[in-house]
Amino acid sequence: MEPIKTFELSKEYLESLREGIELLDNEFIKQSLEGVNVADIAAILDELNMDEAIYVLRLLDHSFAADILIELDEDSLVKVIREMDPIELAALIDEMESDDAADILILMPTKEREDVISNLQVKEKSANILDLLRYDEYSAGGLMAKEFIKANKNWNVIQTIEEIRRQAENVEKIYSIYVVDNRQHLLGRVSLKKIILASSDTKISDIYEPELISVPTHMEGEEVAEIMRKYDLESLPVVNAKNRLVGRITVDDILDLIREQSEEDIQAMTGISADIEESDSVFRISKARLPWLLIGVIGGLMGAKIIGLFEDGLSKYIALASFIPLVAATGGNVGIQSSSLVVQTLASKSVFNDTPWQRFIKGLMIALVNGLVLGAFVFSVVVFIYGFESIFGLTIGLAMFCVVLLASFMGTVTPLVLDKFGINPAIASGPFITTANDLLGLAVYFGVAMALLKL
Amino acid sequence: MEPIKTFELSKEYLESLREGIELLDNEFIKQSLEGVNVADIAAILDELNMDEAIYVLRLLDHSFAADILIELDEDSLVKVIREMDPIELAALIDEMESDDAADILILMPTKEREDVISNLQVKEKSANILDLLRYDEYSAGGLMAKEFIKANKNWNVIQTIEEIRRQAENVEKIYSIYVVDNRQHLLGRVSLKKIILASSDTKISDIYEPELISVPTHMEGEEVAEIMRKYDLESLPVVNAKNRLVGRITVDDILDLIREQSEEDIQAMTGISADIEESDSVFRISKARLPWLLIGVIGGLMGAKIIGLFEDGLSKYIALASFIPLVAATGGNVGIQSSSLVVQTLASKSVFNDTPWQRFIKGLMIALVNGLVLGAFVFSVVVFIYGFESIFGLTIGLAMFCVVLLASFMGTVTPLVLDKFGINPAIASGPFITTANDLLGLAVYFGVAMALLKL
Repeated sequence: MEPIKTFELSKEYLESLREGIELLDNEFIKQSLEGVNVADIAAILDELNMDEAIYVLRLLDHSFAADILIELDEDSLVKVIREMDPIELAALIDEMESDDAADILILMPTKEREDVISNLQVKEKSANILDLLRYDEYSAGGLMAKEFIKANKNWNVIQTIEEIRRQAENVEKIYSIYVVDNRQHLLGRVSLKKIILASSDTKISDIYEPELISVPTHMEGEEVAEIMRKYDLESLPVVNAKNRLVGRITVDDILDLIREQSEEDIQAMTGISADIEESDSVFRISKARLPWLLIGVIGGLMGAKIIGLFEDGLSKYIALASFIPLVAATGGNVGIQSSSLVVQTLASKSVFNDTPWQRFIKGLMIALVNGLVLGAFVFSVVVFIYGFESIFGLTIGLAMFCVVLLASFMGTVTPLVLDKFGINPAIASGPFITTANDLLGLAVYFGVAMALLKL
Repeated sequence: MEPIKTFELSKEYLESLREGIELLDNEFIKQSLEGVNVADIAAILDELNMDEAIYVLRLLDHSFAADILIELDEDSLVKVIREMDPIELAALIDEMESDDAADILILMPTKEREDVISNLQVKEKSANILDLLRYDEYSAGGLMAKEFIKANKNWNVIQTIEEIRRQAENVEKIYSIYVVDNRQHLLGRVSLKKIILASSDTKISDIYEPELISVPTHMEGEEVAEIMRKYDLESLPVVNAKNRLVGRITVDDILDLIREQSEEDIQAMTGISADIEESDSVFRISKARLPWLLIGVIGGLMGAKIIGLFEDGLSKYIALASFIPLVAATGGNVGIQSSSLVVQTLASKSVFNDTPWQRFIKGLMIALVNGLVLGAFVFSVVVFIYGFESIFGLTIGLAMFCVVLLASFMGTVTPLVLDKFGINPAIASGPFITTANDLLGLAVYFGVAMALLKL
């Protein structure tokens, strides 16, 4: 059976749509898209070229086209809005909720953006959008919409239902009705379920729940997401510094944000600089990947210089060369483990987290355990299995121990420092830091060898 | 101002709670927790030892304690339910929605689980729970709850409101009312907003929306999450093979699932085997990290053996040793980039993805571009800056080129193969595969050197 009943998204349909566009078969295009979910249509338009996508959008109702526009990939979206004229775009934006409108306008140059806003028909909407554009895109203020239902605590159920009727067009999903006093201070919420079950003349002040979680406009999106997850919320009111209700964040925007951020983290860890996908062009993917590979290569070339300094020692003890990859790889693995644990803790922001000092002590102890175990293991293999003399085994084992300690320290400290400076700490597990760790590891390795083997 | 108004989660409060427990000051404990969000209380109980946590839970109402229990960390939860007797636990589970109850029961041994279920007071609940326990925990069937509101298409609005009233206790958040025919086939949905705005005698069949996305019980949780994100859903009906409505998944469970899975992916990539946090004990963290470090170390020791085979060549051309880390690191970086791109594509499951063959060709072209650029760069630095003879520069450059090609191939193929066998493809970016790539890279490096330098 079909998991998704509405529409079969297929390469065959894409072909027939392309044909329909070429033949200007407007009837076929409109009919085939009727009742199809906007996210599915957007996925189809993402595959078309810009002229074809705009042709389809112009055939559809403004409200339908607006919903599709919101769901486009950022790449396609930028191309489409660059091509549309301000009046045409304003007609679509008039049909959107304020947060979606702001998300689109923020992609445009200031001049074009103002042109579009001045062409909006709904004056309240342009005020709302201008308000939202003031906030950082990834803050609570930037994530919220201005469309929601609020009720004065002095209203009764009938008045509240009237307000729902009045706003029914603007607010697609209601979830909760927020309760405010005469000065718009947020007091609590009342669920639609309660409204349905209460008698018409019940006062809102008698049925609302005063325990309500709200967030300030300046809170970071990541923290907002964590609050919604932790407290199982599908919508979250946003208040200004005076505790006045100014907007509402819904869970669909948070799901998108979480996905974006986890992709960003993984890209930071793997060193792919732009927001690319496997379906992008060879040139684009290479361009995004090469800079990070070059960092690694330059690091490797510097490593070659460092090893070159010890060439005399190496030629006396050629076996030292054999263990270079072992030392380098262990340092890299330990560093990535340590940094990813710290990054995970930073994301959860619990008040029960260890203090930096406790963290340092614990990190040191874990590094000692790991370093001792791995050092002893390597010593045993090198001496008892590979049959090297024990001073050589001691050299390799001690170098391992030192590298584990050093890499743990760097892996723990780097993300903390990055976070302090407001940089995504996930970068600490990426190529730049890993390369720096490799170089340090090499220096330690040859330092220990020089000392113990008297080279 | 406070972002979260309800409760200040502080170490000071934790201390005073501990004191209250020691002094058996039940009044203080109950009063201080009154009206506090259950997720906050759970975070506090996670910090207590098991006896203290159970003491607090026993003081509270069954329904309050049940809500807190659901929010506990899995570690604390397992300890608490192991300690409670079946009758006590059944009284709490009677107060839970079926999906939460099943999530808890699945943590118990079969015998104890049956004891608890046989002590449940609400017979309908035990049937529901037994039904849910049949499904895989991470499938749609395992994620769904049996509590939701459904309306027959022949009902009118008044009858539907009666059903809401009847179920108000069981269904905490309604979102949508699902519309079914006489044989329980899912037909569509109607929003609470529509119910509020329609007149009492309106027929459900006149106002419901027939376009509705549903998923089958066997769908994987990851796919369910992607559908809810893509289509902006806060709840999703689940149907059986006969398209009969059997449950409902809500977005709060999906947010938890997404977080768990992204942590799992990062742990797979960084090689930390158990589900650990920075706040766990030194012993536990070391135990989780050491196995993966050992894999890397064993790989490194095998690498030492490989290099040892070329010792004669190395002693003639000692400079070869200097470039070992360069070659190994580049192979590692290229492999991780390639595999993470593939993993990202696998997660999105678009029908417009390239076929395996197109993917292979494109991967090859990107590898050629990257390999040529990096190989040429390395050749230039080695010959023109470091002043080696050009045959040596060619050796290093060509080895780089081969390693980039090989690592790209391995990085692309490995996650695809793992995915085919139902293994999390994120492991491909982890220590095991990276180590294998390192060894291959070393073999290629010395192979090229043997051939070109005639060693």
